[in-house]
Amino acid sequence: MSDLATLLAVARGDRPADLRLTNGRVVNVLTEEVEESDVALSGAWIAGVGPGYDARETLDLGGQFVLPGLIDAHVHIESSLATPPEFARAVVPRGTTTVVSDPHEIANVHGLEGIRYMLAASEGLPLTAFVMASSCVPATHMGTAGAALGAGDLASLDHPRVLGLAELMNFPGAIQGAPEVLEKLAAFRGRVVDGHAPGVTGKALNAYVASGPRSDHECTSPGEAEEKLRRGLWVFFREATNARNLLALLPALSPGSRRRIALCTDDRQPADLLDKGGIDDMLRTLVGEGIDPVQAIGLATLNPAEYFGLHDRGAVAPGRRGDLVVVPSLDELRAAMVFSGGKLVAEGGEALWPRPPHPPPPPTPSMAVREDTLDFSIPKRRGQARVIRAVPDQIVTRAEAATPATADDEVVADTERDLLKIAVVERHTGSGRVGLGLVTGIGLQRGAIAGTVAHDHHNIIVIGADDTSMRSAVQAVAELRGGLAVARGDQVLASLALPVGGLMSEAPVEAIRASLDDVVRSARALGSPLHDPFMAMSFLGLEVIPELKITDLGLVDVEAFEPVDFWLDERRAPAASRDSADVARNSPA
Amino acid sequence: MSDLATLLAVARGDRPADLRLTNGRVVNVLTEEVEESDVALSGAWIAGVGPGYDARETLDLGGQFVLPGLIDAHVHIESSLATPPEFARAVVPRGTTTVVSDPHEIANVHGLEGIRYMLAASEGLPLTAFVMASSCVPATHMGTAGAALGAGDLASLDHPRVLGLAELMNFPGAIQGAPEVLEKLAAFRGRVVDGHAPGVTGKALNAYVASGPRSDHECTSPGEAEEKLRRGLWVFFREATNARNLLALLPALSPGSRRRIALCTDDRQPADLLDKGGIDDMLRTLVGEGIDPVQAIGLATLNPAEYFGLHDRGAVAPGRRGDLVVVPSLDELRAAMVFSGGKLVAEGGEALWPRPPHPPPPPTPSMAVREDTLDFSIPKRRGQARVIRAVPDQIVTRAEAATPATADDEVVADTERDLLKIAVVERHTGSGRVGLGLVTGIGLQRGAIAGTVAHDHHNIIVIGADDTSMRSAVQAVAELRGGLAVARGDQVLASLALPVGGLMSEAPVEAIRASLDDVVRSARALGSPLHDPFMAMSFLGLEVIPELKITDLGLVDVEAFEPVDFWLDERRAPAASRDSADVARNSPA
Repeated sequence: MSDLATLLAVARGDRPADLRLTNGRVVNVLTEEVEESDVALSGAWIAGVGPGYDARETLDLGGQFVLPGLIDAHVHIESSLATPPEFARAVVPRGTTTVVSDPHEIANVHGLEGIRYMLAASEGLPLTAFVMASSCVPATHMGTAGAALGAGDLASLDHPRVLGLAELMNFPGAIQGAPEVLEKLAAFRGRVVDGHAPGVTGKALNAYVASGPRSDHECTSPGEAEEKLRRGLWVFFREATNARNLLALLPALSPGSRRRIALCTDDRQPADLLDKGGIDDMLRTLVGEGIDPVQAIGLATLNPAEYFGLHDRGAVAPGRRGDLVVVPSLDELRAAMVFSGGKLVAEGGEALWPRPPHPPPPPTPSMAVREDTLDFSIPKRRGQARVIRAVPDQIVTRAEAATPATADDEVVADTERDLLKIAVVERHTGSGRVGLGLVTGIGLQRGAIAGTVAHDHHNIIVIGADDTSMRSAVQAVAELRGGLAVARGDQVLASLALPVGGLMSEAPVEAIRASLDDVVRSARALGSPLHDPFMAMSFLGLEVIPELKITDLGLVDVEAFEPVDFWLDERRAPAASRDSADVARNSPA
Repeated sequence: MSDLATLLAVARGDRPADLRLTNGRVVNVLTEEVEESDVALSGAWIAGVGPGYDARETLDLGGQFVLPGLIDAHVHIESSLATPPEFARAVVPRGTTTVVSDPHEIANVHGLEGIRYMLAASEGLPLTAFVMASSCVPATHMGTAGAALGAGDLASLDHPRVLGLAELMNFPGAIQGAPEVLEKLAAFRGRVVDGHAPGVTGKALNAYVASGPRSDHECTSPGEAEEKLRRGLWVFFREATNARNLLALLPALSPGSRRRIALCTDDRQPADLLDKGGIDDMLRTLVGEGIDPVQAIGLATLNPAEYFGLHDRGAVAPGRRGDLVVVPSLDELRAAMVFSGGKLVAEGGEALWPRPPHPPPPPTPSMAVREDTLDFSIPKRRGQARVIRAVPDQIVTRAEAATPATADDEVVADTERDLLKIAVVERHTGSGRVGLGLVTGIGLQRGAIAGTVAHDHHNIIVIGADDTSMRSAVQAVAELRGGLAVARGDQVLASLALPVGGLMSEAPVEAIRASLDDVVRSARALGSPLHDPFMAMSFLGLEVIPELKITDLGLVDVEAFEPVDFWLDERRAPAASRDSADVARNSPA
């Protein structure tokens, strides 16, 4: 008997179910009702909802609520610093049974090999990790990544878990109809294409939508979200470790538009995942804000399922996957039990499945850091310099200006004004390129922090109060073959190794979290007041998020979508040749 | 410049639009708002919604409302008795710019050739006619059709307008997991599958849903619709000429479920289409019942677009088709102008496009009626006979019982009790089979009506007060090579030729309508009070709609899903062999 024939026999009542959940209250997101009803499971599938099923095993839920497994509409698993099997251990026990991931962090390091690793490493988990083909590797021409993926590369990702094209971050290219962008869109015609258009409105938004993306998760204000909804984009409300947009966007959640809104975490570091949770945490926030729990749950289940065409999940209904979350209360929404594919996989927040073996990781990531060019000096000049202002809990930055402090004919950090040096050291090609700038909002009083997590190029990013500490921190992460480090002077104070692509560790997620706590504690001891200064730093390199960012090619004005000079009165950055070591250091002239 | 590049240039404002609609109020179904906004069109597409666009041509709408083109979620175009180009002339001027059609009428006559004819005949129209591959040809094993389509045949329909698998009417087969049904479902895995499950509830509904269909348009009560919505089916509210379910289903339209409800006409005859309209008529009914017009319009635009994955339409938004309906008032919803693919194609209810040439129709349909077996006699017996009760404005029937009138040792019609003879004469294979029964609810006082429109096998169906009139009527439609006829005694009183498959005429839809008026008038003169007795008759042959129906194999108890005898005390019909002329006549023994 085929699986489907068995399922139908159970549904009809001609064959006992494998498992029956009785005395539960089913949250029916299809109709926004709560039904007192049994749920009968056959293998991995829901066979029936309703009374009168026989079963080999019965579980009395004692009036608890049964939710569909939660779906994270957009996540970069790499940001958990854990590999997919360990990421699953963090999120599944809290109720997330499906994620739609964009592996563009590892793709920027290892290309298709990185994406294939993520697919292999997420095989056979109680978490379904769908993959969107990373559309922007590299993110732009304004930074150097370890790989470049063209339309043909992306189209070659023929795998049942690859759903479509991931966030199209090159929004200026899409709006302008750049041939390489149109080529990628054409390769995914008829499939889902995620968008990324921070702050894009008006005619530019019309053009972006017309080019093909169907969603956006970069809204920071309700007005922006409303305009995007009106023009046809689905909006994913995001609450990442360093991009907290959920509460700000709530006013955009209206009866007329809520069908086209989903939830995503985008980037959450492990302590957040373990302490607060993921999508479940967002649901608790929504319910805490007075949103009807059944409607809130729809945003995290049926809506993303419909957006991505995942007709086999997103609701507690016959023929859908037995991905279920049992919660004692709709006011609290804490998973007491989680079923994935019909099996109980977590109870009381604890994973019940054994750790599977890891597949072989991609080769050791490149750390081609050249000692001879590891130089953060900036000759002094008159005039104001561009300054990146890190915005708390946001990945957008502000472009500011300041007259830098100087000493011995060089620009130096000024901790009194919280003006620190920031640098991006190219690590993929051995070019020796270093992009230099100033940043405010990180708050280090001394020493430096560095990491190979530097969206999306994942070069080595470093912020420091002095050049020696910066050099020590960079050398420390290079020696780790990837990771995070804190240094003061010549001394490395703490570090976390991330040998998988320089992004992830194969260690248990709790161990990663403990090491991360160490390095964060160490950075805080150097004066940074931030929740996670490493994550804040990592997004200062992302040249597709306004306003001012930094790559190995120097500062980038994201709204103009072009490199700019360190000094404010120089509009353009000096021409950089990727091939010539002579002009490789993108420090100011 | 590619079409997309041009579209983006217009959207950005870098190139003038082809057409700009100003001073309009855009019904935004994406957010359920009305926006005062311009709409800029580039070629067939909407480039931008918002102010500030230049254009080669500007149309001032003077405050009228702009709706997305209406979408009929499920229609058998053949029921209009017109071919697709003429069907378009009926529906497009009233605002329907997209239909999702199931060509299973012509498929039951001409197989794949019939479907390909419908695709060819709908090419290049201002109406987009999508096609669902007809899943049930023949509808069941309990009737004889002109063709049989297996999973392989259906999968061979590789055409950009073929979306998925059409209404899976063999619901007992789906529920039971019949291999031929599962094979068809497997052939369309991952694509949309429409359902058809009249009155199916409880465990049977769980099994039906689990088998794969995603929608149902056969609900007749709000409770039935609510249960189907809860179990995951989309529900299409239907208002056909002879299946008026819209008002009855309104209580099922709730804020929590309305996102999963669409509208369909299923089967409307030409007078209804021309006098009342199609989906536009349903919208007027909804608004008349107090439903918010913007929400109602969503049921006929965005919802079916989302259900079918038609991301290029369903809303007035950038990158979607320039299929627009301009109405002076949301209370009235009558199309003043209709745009299709960016072109004005109708104004004031009048089509503005020229009649295109018809493609060659399939070969003349078979009318293999054998004179020697054209015999409607039923030997008399004691006891009660099964009687089909036609239900006004519904395609469901009731199974009743009556002691038939007799004369000269034969059962005869009894017009005083409105008990008429009904017969289905097999026309496809020359078998000479005739199925016989009694019907009440048609109301003829004399004479007979016959037609080759007899869902879904489209044999010749005939209802009469005497055998001679029945024979005349049958012979008349056979001589027409398909059509409808009214006869009294030897005299044919009126007829309408339907030479395309015995289902459609290539004549202008207004001419078809005039001829239909003639035959209906003639049938009414014989005593039938029905709005359209031919359409009522045509569904009495549809053995997938409860309760009692008739095919060339005799009466069918649809709930038992098996043939039954004319006499009530005989549970089973006599075994019929399709190969043996000896038992070919399925009249009672």
